Amino acid sequence: MELENIKHSLSHILAYAVQSLYKDAKFGIGPAIENGFYYDMEVELKEEDLKKIEDKMKEIIKSDISFEQKIISKEEARDIFKDQPYKLELIDEIEEDNVSIYILGEFIDLCKGPHIKSTKEIDSNAFKLDKLAGAYWRGSEKNKMLTRVYGLAFESKEKLNEYIKLMEEAEKRDHRKLGRELDLFHTEEEVGIGLVLWHPKGAIIWRLIEDFWYKKHLENGYELVRTPHIGSRKLWERSGHWGFYSDSMYPPIEIGQSLEESQNKEELKESEQFLLKPMNCPFHVSIYNSSPRSYRDLPMRWAETGTVYRFEKKGELSGLTRVRGFTQDDAHIICREDQVEEELKRVIDFILFIYKSFGFDIDSVKVYLSLRDENDKMKYAGTDEGWNFSESVLRKVAIEKNLNFVEEKGEAAFYGPKLDFKIKDVLGREWQCSTLQFDFNLAERFDMTFTNDKGEKEQPYMLHRALFGSFERFIGLLLEHYAGALPFWLSPVQVKIIPVSENHIDYALEIKEKLKEYRVEIDRNSDTIGKKIRNGEMEKVPYLLVVGDKERESKTVSVRQRGKIDLGVMTIEKFLETEK
Amino acid sequence: MELENIKHSLSHILAYAVQSLYKDAKFGIGPAIENGFYYDMEVELKEEDLKKIEDKMKEIIKSDISFEQKIISKEEARDIFKDQPYKLELIDEIEEDNVSIYILGEFIDLCKGPHIKSTKEIDSNAFKLDKLAGAYWRGSEKNKMLTRVYGLAFESKEKLNEYIKLMEEAEKRDHRKLGRELDLFHTEEEVGIGLVLWHPKGAIIWRLIEDFWYKKHLENGYELVRTPHIGSRKLWERSGHWGFYSDSMYPPIEIGQSLEESQNKEELKESEQFLLKPMNCPFHVSIYNSSPRSYRDLPMRWAETGTVYRFEKKGELSGLTRVRGFTQDDAHIICREDQVEEELKRVIDFILFIYKSFGFDIDSVKVYLSLRDENDKMKYAGTDEGWNFSESVLRKVAIEKNLNFVEEKGEAAFYGPKLDFKIKDVLGREWQCSTLQFDFNLAERFDMTFTNDKGEKEQPYMLHRALFGSFERFIGLLLEHYAGALPFWLSPVQVKIIPVSENHIDYALEIKEKLKEYRVEIDRNSDTIGKKIRNGEMEKVPYLLVVGDKERESKTVSVRQRGKIDLGVMTIEKFLETEK
Repeated sequence: MELENIKHSLSHILAYAVQSLYKDAKFGIGPAIENGFYYDMEVELKEEDLKKIEDKMKEIIKSDISFEQKIISKEEARDIFKDQPYKLELIDEIEEDNVSIYILGEFIDLCKGPHIKSTKEIDSNAFKLDKLAGAYWRGSEKNKMLTRVYGLAFESKEKLNEYIKLMEEAEKRDHRKLGRELDLFHTEEEVGIGLVLWHPKGAIIWRLIEDFWYKKHLENGYELVRTPHIGSRKLWERSGHWGFYSDSMYPPIEIGQSLEESQNKEELKESEQFLLKPMNCPFHVSIYNSSPRSYRDLPMRWAETGTVYRFEKKGELSGLTRVRGFTQDDAHIICREDQVEEELKRVIDFILFIYKSFGFDIDSVKVYLSLRDENDKMKYAGTDEGWNFSESVLRKVAIEKNLNFVEEKGEAAFYGPKLDFKIKDVLGREWQCSTLQFDFNLAERFDMTFTNDKGEKEQPYMLHRALFGSFERFIGLLLEHYAGALPFWLSPVQVKIIPVSENHIDYALEIKEKLKEYRVEIDRNSDTIGKKIRNGEMEKVPYLLVVGDKERESKTVSVRQRGKIDLGVMTIEKFLETEK
Repeated sequence: MELENIKHSLSHILAYAVQSLYKDAKFGIGPAIENGFYYDMEVELKEEDLKKIEDKMKEIIKSDISFEQKIISKEEARDIFKDQPYKLELIDEIEEDNVSIYILGEFIDLCKGPHIKSTKEIDSNAFKLDKLAGAYWRGSEKNKMLTRVYGLAFESKEKLNEYIKLMEEAEKRDHRKLGRELDLFHTEEEVGIGLVLWHPKGAIIWRLIEDFWYKKHLENGYELVRTPHIGSRKLWERSGHWGFYSDSMYPPIEIGQSLEESQNKEELKESEQFLLKPMNCPFHVSIYNSSPRSYRDLPMRWAETGTVYRFEKKGELSGLTRVRGFTQDDAHIICREDQVEEELKRVIDFILFIYKSFGFDIDSVKVYLSLRDENDKMKYAGTDEGWNFSESVLRKVAIEKNLNFVEEKGEAAFYGPKLDFKIKDVLGREWQCSTLQFDFNLAERFDMTFTNDKGEKEQPYMLHRALFGSFERFIGLLLEHYAGALPFWLSPVQVKIIPVSENHIDYALEIKEKLKEYRVEIDRNSDTIGKKIRNGEMEKVPYLLVVGDKERESKTVSVRQRGKIDLGVMTIEKFLETEK
């Protein structure tokens, strides 16, 4: 709370400093936020102005100025803020007769507080102006674009520096930056924003992960299915997606929309709408319903790496983490009630196995159990018994599997309760990853049944689950977690052979042949040896093998491991042992 | 030619027979076709009527009636055909003053001939009425639906029977039928016709093929890419697809089409059209153009199993062979002129390797070399030199690789010459499969370049190629070729263990554990042993392992190989040697 006050007070000090330097500045609002504060204002600033403003702020802090609150009438306030149109707008919206203002030296702000007593309470070394951004007044594109000045503020200089370092590290690890530098993927306007084009080095990472994923799914008793990327609107209406979810979907493809203009075209006799799939579920249900099912056939565990399309807002798109087309590592488990607990446990084990396989710390996994709102039961699909059972069995397995979980009442989707899994990357940042959800909606809407051991029709339980969440996001996470230096098995190029000169290319080819089980490149450029090594390091190749006269004669290679570790000269057989 | 006359004469005899049996029948047209003939008529018939009509035809043939031609005026013809509205329509369209008619006993037809002299020339045992179908008059949906009676006709009874047998065999092998029986896939109206849903047993076949395909591509020096299923209309306009190919594409998805109604929705600020991709090429070009390329970087060989969508006419859709969504096993090779020949040869070797790998006879492969029309050079993209070079190098490699090829002048696409490969299945039917095409269009339109060894910008050669053509069609072909009894490595279930009773399930599980590298199922149904074996045979499982008391005691299995071959009792180790 103390820090909140300091952050908020710093935003006033920021505004005071700007007011003293830019007489015409008009002020919007300036709240405390995570890691600091900001202030929106109408004033022209450049990044280089931040230093000057920050110096001014330090001067104000040094001057030991007190924050003084006054309660005044709206009339008085309107007079004080007569040159501040944004403040006047805010005053108009206040319902009470009186308003609260804070006076800080020559700067007066419309504000409820609370604030610190005096500027001297602030540690000048524990804050920093961070950056500028544009922000619409009140967040609406119809209003004027203001300048937002961001500041960082922490309890201490040490904490501030720690955070700055973390941010610098995060920037270096930014998967969008790594995607370009390592030539993994790109997006472009001409193809469509948010639609990722995977280059060879990115697509091989994808393939390796997918291959691992398929193998492990088959080993874990899953079967595969494969479904189209579009489906008739009829299907999406029945599933409820079109009703509840159409805001996030691409508009329909309308067959026969130009029927009138083209009466002669016989192919347009058909009139139908198709939708890009935002989810795979209804297709899996169609497969389930294509045959009568018996209790003996259950559980079904059907997995698909299904590419789905969602129309995310332009402004929200970002690299691989927020895209318009992405591939879910999806599966649906359809089972009997007596199988639910076992199936949930299997999924949890599988999730944790996957995290471990990709090098994440499974002790830091945080789990959220989303339950329904007991006071508003009507809004949920399914029966009371179904919910009671599924919520309690989720809780039971979360406890038995020793998950670090919190319960969130009212956070369940209308179709069922769920467990969400978040993992921490090496910088401690949380990433939403796996999910495990009950679905009462589809089973009902599509009238899914099986014949139980008494010969009666019964509705099965349906579980959705994804381990990565999406391939795109998971690859983004891996890139940031490893700062692009992916584990050996996932590296697009595992070994790069660097011939000292043209004369050593034949020997390099000989070495490549011996390594044919691996992904090996030869650097044939005419650069200097130093440049080639630097390039190999930039490309984050796990091993660079330099071959020159000496190596050729002694039938060896000179090995440099990623991270500038010189492993020395050795035979290729010896090198192969290194990686095993 | 003789047989053509017989076929055509049989269609008159058919009409004559129908006329004698159904006085009110109105006749359309009745041509000779491959394997026989048909006649379209307005008359209500059922399949069981065909026997009666066929008997009547044989009676006519026996009666030794002659075909007599007469040239008469249109007036006379109109009088003769006054009760035959379709014939009257045909008469109206004849430009000459006189028309030709043929008289066969009491049946008169408007016909130019030629015909045989007398019905006795026909071998009554070498023809057969085949089936009924509906057919719009003159092929237009706006006209009346007539009844089409199909007949088969061959040189001899033997040839006819051979053909009938082939058709019966083909029907048994029909992949649509096998798809249902083996639970591999289905399509349904609610999802959208022509959009295939792959069930677990179908999806595993797909995955096995895809896995093989990827491995072999990586071994053969290809890299992988991965691209979205939709792209902005701008892209498809630039590529020329929207201009030349939009009839085969799904209509656009229009973002912002409801802009006016929803001024408040900020997310609709964007207005753009997206198209489902009918081909992968422009995306691969975008990846190529995302970096400057040097002559040292070439050749690029970029492969993708890309699912494309084409709006095929409803009436033309069929199983897996004509669908609206299918996955091309696509690759683009971008290379220098001096690399073209080598790259073409590599592709041809790869194609033949793939055919062999899936058990096709590569000696029966037929190749078509499509060249441009020399008299209409203006309609082609690219330069004269480019075409001359690429046509001659295609011819050269086809000769050097000993391909059984024919040249087809004027059959090239506007964007470049190509080689098409057709393979024969076990019934001798040809299937269009691989293709290898030059593309001058995209290289030009997207301004693709590389820096050559003189430091100048140069346009690379671009080759499209597909080995299977599409996964869907290729799997259809495999199913028909093998009549569903796929090779061991492609069988969804490779081994089925059949416990004699409930008591033997534990032992079955033990056996399954020993076979965990294979796809193994245990039949847990309570059916009789005979029923279980028959089911396993119906499912075309390569090996059935029966386990009862005897086997459990002696730690053996009783092995039945597909095709009802009893391999006897053996240990599981011995069985494993069988398949190796």
